[in-house]
Amino acid sequence: MSKNDLQYYESQQCSLQWRAFLNAFSAEFSTKGDLKDLRLFMHQLGRNMAQNLGFQGGDSLQLLEDNMNAIWGRMHWGWVEVNEEAEALVLLHHASPLKAAFGEQSLIWTPALLEGIYASWFEGMGMDPSLRLQQKAGDSGIAQVLVFELKRQVEESPFFGRR
Amino acid sequence: MSKNDLQYYESQQCSLQWRAFLNAFSAEFSTKGDLKDLRLFMHQLGRNMAQNLGFQGGDSLQLLEDNMNAIWGRMHWGWVEVNEEAEALVLLHHASPLKAAFGEQSLIWTPALLEGIYASWFEGMGMDPSLRLQQKAGDSGIAQVLVFELKRQVEESPFFGRR
Amino acid sequence: MSKNDLQYYESQQCSLQWRAFLNAFSAEFSTKGDLKDLRLFMHQLGRNMAQNLGFQGGDSLQLLEDNMNAIWGRMHWGWVEVNEEAEALVLLHHASPLKAAFGEQSLIWTPALLEGIYASWFEGMGMDPSLRLQQKAGDSGIAQVLVFELKRQVEESPFFGRR
Amino acid sequence: MSKNDLQYYESQQCSLQWRAFLNAFSAEFSTKGDLKDLRLFMHQLGRNMAQNLGFQGGDSLQLLEDNMNAIWGRMHWGWVEVNEEAEALVLLHHASPLKAAFGEQSLIWTPALLEGIYASWFEGMGMDPSLRLQQKAGDSGIAQVLVFELKRQVEESPFFGRR
Repeated sequence: MSKNDLQYYESQQCSLQWRAFLNAFSAEFSTKGDLKDLRLFMHQLGRNMAQNLGFQGGDSLQLLEDNMNAIWGRMHWGWVEVNEEAEALVLLHHASPLKAAFGEQSLIWTPALLEGIYASWFEGMGMDPSLRLQQKAGDSGIAQVLVFELKRQVEESPFFGRR
Repeated sequence: MSKNDLQYYESQQCSLQWRAFLNAFSAEFSTKGDLKDLRLFMHQLGRNMAQNLGFQGGDSLQLLEDNMNAIWGRMHWGWVEVNEEAEALVLLHHASPLKAAFGEQSLIWTPALLEGIYASWFEGMGMDPSLRLQQKAGDSGIAQVLVFELKRQVEESPFFGRR
Repeated sequence: MSKNDLQYYESQQCSLQWRAFLNAFSAEFSTKGDLKDLRLFMHQLGRNMAQNLGFQGGDSLQLLEDNMNAIWGRMHWGWVEVNEEAEALVLLHHASPLKAAFGEQSLIWTPALLEGIYASWFEGMGMDPSLRLQQKAGDSGIAQVLVFELKRQVEESPFFGRR
Repeated sequence: MSKNDLQYYESQQCSLQWRAFLNAFSAEFSTKGDLKDLRLFMHQLGRNMAQNLGFQGGDSLQLLEDNMNAIWGRMHWGWVEVNEEAEALVLLHHASPLKAAFGEQSLIWTPALLEGIYASWFEGMGMDPSLRLQQKAGDSGIAQVLVFELKRQVEESPFFGRR
């Protein structure tokens, strides 16, 4: 697939009806706070959204993935791969409309929306409270795949006890 | 047309892709400020959006209306009627997606988005600086038609207290 | 609701992606056969479509209506009311995209598509073989509501037998 | 881009509203005639569609391509590259919705729709009558890029049997 094909497909990921609004929102909103605030607001929006998406959980990784993708497919929000790794459950979210909707320069904070949705879904399934779902640190957000990890929250320092 | 038909048509005005996001945005955002702040932000968003909608103005009322509706139709944002009255140019915006997108309870502030767009468009055509475009005071926003007026801004009088 | 609002809503019932194709199909196809052939083809298309829409039936009129509307809503094909009358089950299909897609002049044959879908759905639920689902005779198809009836097939003539 | 990404993007190229209809149309219609008839009907449909797409021609290859892509982009029908070669003008149509709409097995006849549109557009620009626009012979139609050529129609020789 050529670079042009990819550009075409990406550009089509956001419905024309809201593209201008979401672009303006992103431009306007990013002047209103620092990166941490922006991510916090988007994360909270995601949690709020999650309540109305009708996620039904799933007893196996496959069912979990299928039920998530039933929602994402219906919404045209791309698709997710759920992989089990040694220390974490890793979610790879492909073809999200975030770049087309909010612009490439906002990909450092807009994926917190998906983070909030996934966090809310996993908490709703009664996950162990020591676990936490977060976008992978260092995930530039520029790549076409967004990476989220569900893993034990490691404290930053064994001495000073803060994470 | 029955009430049910109307409900169906209204519900279809917002694309499924962003409905959950926009509903969550509206719920979250309305807790962040008072009515004036919310309207101000939306008005500003509208001005920002207006820059990218490619409005070309128009030499006659009919052409003005046609050029606006070419944009609204393409975006699925309803349609506008432009009427000349004695003291004002009146814009009646029909079938906007604001109610379906942001919820009925937010119609007291979300139409400021259209206000910002129309204000930016008229200013861009070099309108007389004494004129101002505003949503009609008392327009409940609940009705299906949103009313905007372009008219002379009367100065507030220090003596008589009315503008 | 004004006549203009209705026109706007109707015009929006068909996605832009296929409107030109479906209009051309309708114009081209209507020259290929007489009314009976056109209706037969559309009815057959409807039966074919029905197989892939995932209709689950329903034990009560309300459930039947809900399950049908879950499908119609997802497809943006309007909504149906199912009413029980003395001699028939009557389906009123509102806000279908047929007029916007195929043109008003084709409304004499295009509703056979819905007829085929409903017929297939009712047969799939194991309805009494003496019953038959048909668009109501005399339903002009021009009105915004299309009427289908499920009722006992009356023989045309007690003397000349069955059709 | 992974194979899964491509499958996702392709599947999203046809609006949900008409996918079931177009799939049923393709299945039903392909039983009604041989390959030549199917292609002829689609080619004719394409010519009919072309009349309503508002193509404005173009004085240069770039303008031609831009004006075509303005239409394809608005309709979500992919995009085209126009290349000049020694003996032909070659059009590469990418990311068309034909596969998602009508199914992979119909790609041997459905591209005749695009052929009819392009043929009508070039004829409308007053091209030399000795030229003819056709889908490239041997273009399997399975590939993601459909190839059309505008070139001099070589007469079939009664002696040598090949054109």
